[in-house]
Amino acid sequence: MAGGGDGAFIGAIHRAAARLDGEVELVCGAFSADAGRSRATGAALRLAPERSYDNWRAMLGGESRLPAGERAEFIVIVTPNVLHLPIAEAALRAGFHVLSDKPATASLAEARQLAAVVHESGRRYALTHTYLGYPLVNEARERVLAGELGTIRRVIVQYPQGWLAGPLESTGQKQAAWRTDPTQAGPGGSIADIGVHAFNLAEFVTGQTVVAVCADLASVVPGRAVDDDAAVFLRFAGGARGLLIASQVATGEGNDLSIAIYGSTAALAWSHATPNTLRLMSLDGREQYLRAGTDAAGLGATARSLCRTPVGHPEGFIEAFANLYRAFAADVRAFPAGPATLKSPAGIDAALRGMRFVDGAIRSSAAGQIWVNL
Amino acid sequence: MAGGGDGAFIGAIHRAAARLDGEVELVCGAFSADAGRSRATGAALRLAPERSYDNWRAMLGGESRLPAGERAEFIVIVTPNVLHLPIAEAALRAGFHVLSDKPATASLAEARQLAAVVHESGRRYALTHTYLGYPLVNEARERVLAGELGTIRRVIVQYPQGWLAGPLESTGQKQAAWRTDPTQAGPGGSIADIGVHAFNLAEFVTGQTVVAVCADLASVVPGRAVDDDAAVFLRFAGGARGLLIASQVATGEGNDLSIAIYGSTAALAWSHATPNTLRLMSLDGREQYLRAGTDAAGLGATARSLCRTPVGHPEGFIEAFANLYRAFAADVRAFPAGPATLKSPAGIDAALRGMRFVDGAIRSSAAGQIWVNL
Amino acid sequence: MAGGGDGAFIGAIHRAAARLDGEVELVCGAFSADAGRSRATGAALRLAPERSYDNWRAMLGGESRLPAGERAEFIVIVTPNVLHLPIAEAALRAGFHVLSDKPATASLAEARQLAAVVHESGRRYALTHTYLGYPLVNEARERVLAGELGTIRRVIVQYPQGWLAGPLESTGQKQAAWRTDPTQAGPGGSIADIGVHAFNLAEFVTGQTVVAVCADLASVVPGRAVDDDAAVFLRFAGGARGLLIASQVATGEGNDLSIAIYGSTAALAWSHATPNTLRLMSLDGREQYLRAGTDAAGLGATARSLCRTPVGHPEGFIEAFANLYRAFAADVRAFPAGPATLKSPAGIDAALRGMRFVDGAIRSSAAGQIWVNL
Amino acid sequence: MAGGGDGAFIGAIHRAAARLDGEVELVCGAFSADAGRSRATGAALRLAPERSYDNWRAMLGGESRLPAGERAEFIVIVTPNVLHLPIAEAALRAGFHVLSDKPATASLAEARQLAAVVHESGRRYALTHTYLGYPLVNEARERVLAGELGTIRRVIVQYPQGWLAGPLESTGQKQAAWRTDPTQAGPGGSIADIGVHAFNLAEFVTGQTVVAVCADLASVVPGRAVDDDAAVFLRFAGGARGLLIASQVATGEGNDLSIAIYGSTAALAWSHATPNTLRLMSLDGREQYLRAGTDAAGLGATARSLCRTPVGHPEGFIEAFANLYRAFAADVRAFPAGPATLKSPAGIDAALRGMRFVDGAIRSSAAGQIWVNL
Repeated sequence: MAGGGDGAFIGAIHRAAARLDGEVELVCGAFSADAGRSRATGAALRLAPERSYDNWRAMLGGESRLPAGERAEFIVIVTPNVLHLPIAEAALRAGFHVLSDKPATASLAEARQLAAVVHESGRRYALTHTYLGYPLVNEARERVLAGELGTIRRVIVQYPQGWLAGPLESTGQKQAAWRTDPTQAGPGGSIADIGVHAFNLAEFVTGQTVVAVCADLASVVPGRAVDDDAAVFLRFAGGARGLLIASQVATGEGNDLSIAIYGSTAALAWSHATPNTLRLMSLDGREQYLRAGTDAAGLGATARSLCRTPVGHPEGFIEAFANLYRAFAADVRAFPAGPATLKSPAGIDAALRGMRFVDGAIRSSAAGQIWVNL
Repeated sequence: MAGGGDGAFIGAIHRAAARLDGEVELVCGAFSADAGRSRATGAALRLAPERSYDNWRAMLGGESRLPAGERAEFIVIVTPNVLHLPIAEAALRAGFHVLSDKPATASLAEARQLAAVVHESGRRYALTHTYLGYPLVNEARERVLAGELGTIRRVIVQYPQGWLAGPLESTGQKQAAWRTDPTQAGPGGSIADIGVHAFNLAEFVTGQTVVAVCADLASVVPGRAVDDDAAVFLRFAGGARGLLIASQVATGEGNDLSIAIYGSTAALAWSHATPNTLRLMSLDGREQYLRAGTDAAGLGATARSLCRTPVGHPEGFIEAFANLYRAFAADVRAFPAGPATLKSPAGIDAALRGMRFVDGAIRSSAAGQIWVNL
Repeated sequence: MAGGGDGAFIGAIHRAAARLDGEVELVCGAFSADAGRSRATGAALRLAPERSYDNWRAMLGGESRLPAGERAEFIVIVTPNVLHLPIAEAALRAGFHVLSDKPATASLAEARQLAAVVHESGRRYALTHTYLGYPLVNEARERVLAGELGTIRRVIVQYPQGWLAGPLESTGQKQAAWRTDPTQAGPGGSIADIGVHAFNLAEFVTGQTVVAVCADLASVVPGRAVDDDAAVFLRFAGGARGLLIASQVATGEGNDLSIAIYGSTAALAWSHATPNTLRLMSLDGREQYLRAGTDAAGLGATARSLCRTPVGHPEGFIEAFANLYRAFAADVRAFPAGPATLKSPAGIDAALRGMRFVDGAIRSSAAGQIWVNL
Repeated sequence: MAGGGDGAFIGAIHRAAARLDGEVELVCGAFSADAGRSRATGAALRLAPERSYDNWRAMLGGESRLPAGERAEFIVIVTPNVLHLPIAEAALRAGFHVLSDKPATASLAEARQLAAVVHESGRRYALTHTYLGYPLVNEARERVLAGELGTIRRVIVQYPQGWLAGPLESTGQKQAAWRTDPTQAGPGGSIADIGVHAFNLAEFVTGQTVVAVCADLASVVPGRAVDDDAAVFLRFAGGARGLLIASQVATGEGNDLSIAIYGSTAALAWSHATPNTLRLMSLDGREQYLRAGTDAAGLGATARSLCRTPVGHPEGFIEAFANLYRAFAADVRAFPAGPATLKSPAGIDAALRGMRFVDGAIRSSAAGQIWVNL
């Protein structure tokens, strides 16, 4: 694991998710740019001292020198965005598979470079787009792809957060500090941090690509160098119109990513606030709720396989994350078998598309809300 | 009452709302373009036969000939949009006050003409923007105006309906037929029918005018002559960004107008699906719910005065509508006393602004999503 | 109208409900035991001065002396419980129909006397059990009676209110004062005030009578002379077990009467907090929501006929009440036609059963939670 | 681990919960009464073959023979109830700590015996009362204990499940089969399976013992040998009245344990359907929602320490379970330090109290709903 030291929320989530199903074991790490803090984290995690490295280059070097059966099988990247490319590139070139936090890179140019390296290396690469790990998100996708909604017409995907409504970065809070610093996060703020989740979710559930965007980005908190509030019109390949909101100044909101998809014959809606429920709506106004659960009536095999508990036993963020780990572990175990059947829901294509979206949205907004093709 | 015959949903709502508080009495009507049906409706409503008129011109003429104490004090217009101006103009010129359903007119040019007539006549004119009659919408406005939210940054107003997701107009359903016929409704479809409600709500609660719009309108159902799906970026006078959705092809949705307003220090959200609840959010994530009710803790005097029942006794659409009738009745009773203190929340200014919005959104969308100043 | 003067919440509701559909007109009243206040209320309601009476005896006398076509057709009783019987009895004997607020009387003995008078007089008598006016309560009943749930096994009906959690009666609040005074309310507190609503709802929706009760009543607020908190085991004629909660010391609660009925093949649940939604559950865990509305998919004719607005336009307490007025008006108009088809959902039988419940619960609790047959 | 083989829902949950925080490692197991199936489960879990035992006696024997640093530190019991006592007793006598699924034993007599053994052995013993692992359940308890609610008056705890509404046991479903078989489960059905959770939650959150019960138990599904539907009046040591529902024939319900506690000055309510939200209600009707999260405003230190994610990132059943494992691991690590500060929320006292409740409820119901002191 690269990154994820003390104070980094997402590193701990990655580790819990990796542990949950007992299929993945943390064997080495370089958790911080500060060698001392990196080693302290390693010690707290009871890593073998020699595999708690001073920095990620040392980790890649050290692990490469271990025998094949002993060394790490894949590298997890949970650093600020600007390090995603160099670490992923070095790891892939050194023969490791890579599981990276989103967004893929700090810029579209970097993402293109990453894609080239991934293809060249032939290694597994996946992105932890958490929400794709939720059972009912997968149920929604399967129902849409099966044509249950008819022609998709209108998509609304919303991601309101409130934690950056104040100038949190000026208080020394790490999470806020790097996310609002273009030299660490890249040019995108909320659009890259959470907009890319919303975009990814919309493409995943609809099974369609977004072909053009028209974006209204703003930096609302005085002094902030990146956008913290974004609204975007979307145009899907199938003709549907979309709307995406990604705001980190939605005062008081937690982390309620939601999506509603309206088709010519039916519609569905899912919200992270109630992740174990999927709302289905018919043309005549009938409304049905599906519940997640290993024993849930009306649920497809995919969704059921992503559940660990029966109906009525809530699963959440860590379980969704663990589903991504389980999928990636399966992909790694199957390596080097053919690429056609990767289980990870977001690979290098989704990674590249996400960065196209970020880049397109920034350019659209900078030009005063013009349409930009992705 | 002009319009509102058999089969017209909103006419019956107007009459129930007028009756609810016992302050307004229906004394005459021309309920249909068909004289026979008009008289049949009048009879069913137990009007005096001589005041059940063949058409609205006859009604205005007949009522004008009655002595001052006997004739109708004001005219309610619940016809298709294209008749709003001619009836309102004739009524105002004949000395009647006018309470009109929205949108004000079929076009912006007509709205300007109407505004001139209203000012010339000196009579009362108000629009039944239903949602402004809800107690907690007024509570929201008062809290925003009192500065509780700090600087408003982001506004999201959504109005999803599903009843026009199929080609209902081709089945002979009256409501659908005239709303999708530009010769009866004007050039706007969903943008004029429900978008104008959403726009009006956003301006009312924020207390700010929208200065520019960038709209993405579509006519989704094949063969439909007007827009049935709309998404609009808004820019408020105070700098806030807004987003407005007004779709009548949101399959399966009922009538859930909602608004969320995010400020620098707090936020609030209201939804028509739960109209007796107002959600308040603070910067640190604390969340509070206010309930409507004559005895509700934490509610301002305005909101309380708009309630008829204690907390826990739901009030709804008809009660909100009745609040508009009560306000207009008060304005009429006070006539001709000064205009400064009209109780009706939407008068000719709101009427004109609504049509500016419809016109601006249509122009913006036709030009490919450019910003249009209102 | 007898009772319902200034400060009486329910009198104003009755009047609004009576007005809503334009089928009932208030023509006379004795609104208070204080003649001056009674007349003041009458004046505020714009009654003819000669029909604003000093007291209810004067009203019955005065109205009786009017010609048949002019006098009141029925008397509405909205006084404290102890006056229900004397007014109803006098009115019925004088040839008036009677619409009474619940509970029917102050004691079971009185209810038996009332029943005798009703049958003797041959006049219409109905109770305003508000919740029976809600469209979806009727939908629930029809589905249960049609056998959709299979054998009913478990019923849970809950009525938590918080307004009497403090000693409100000692502050001079009228509503609290008479309800906690056995000389005005009878021996039952919460059991008679709201328990009787819950009981009535349970019998109405299940279509079964409760044959026995085992009750745990308490007077929680120090110094209070009647029960303010009640829990009751129920046994239904069909063998189902039931549970009823009626508490007025449920701190912070509004007025959320709810019922859940579990059968051998399906279940349903309704809550006054969301009165326009009915939850249906199947044996395998599928969950569906029905919405109220004149155009609602899946709704029976009865429920639709009790709606005034389409789906998504909330109706509430006053509309439910108005449905009771509409039903009683139809019953009165049909008089003296046969009793088989009365539209009022709660007549003298329900009135008597309600008082049997109150009496049985009080006796059960006093004896230390023994079973009492009703 | 004793029990928890293939087909046993709760065994897999225990293992996931144990893994989540990386503090507990599964080192041995006897997962089934069938030696072959036990070993197959051990293999699937990648246990060392020699520590995958044929049966629990062999496991206790084998582990006892290992050196102190190598053998299992504690034994987890996830078998049918009737095995809880023999395994726990043997394990404790052999010097192992014990973490057991609920209910403690199959009968009250057994529970008394277990308590004696626990005290004699001086080892750690805890019960996995899952719901005590939820952050907001702990927040509720702390607020109640701090006196925020004033005097507690009324407690309502409900646990409706629908999975046993049909005769599932006759289909060979394992979970249903042993739970409805008194020779495996003991004399209690739903009262012992879920009633004991509800009872435990009520005592935990109120901080009060239940001193007497009056129960109405039924066996609703034809042919079933144990109760499957229970309603119980409770009397708390502090005088509060309580009501407990535990039904496994609540058709269509999942697993929504909920509790509401009404005090003289405030109230609170929690529901497993929305476990990350705690509803607080004040005497005047103000309503506030607390959210779970490491960064949640208004949350006490205990509740925060039980969260792994920030506000808006749902945690669920496995995380709650993992909190119990974390607590027990801490208790075991601290062993043999003093017993005053055990972190496990349910130890042998709660175990014994739970069985007193089951026993008392069964006796009360059998005697026709009499009060039984616990």
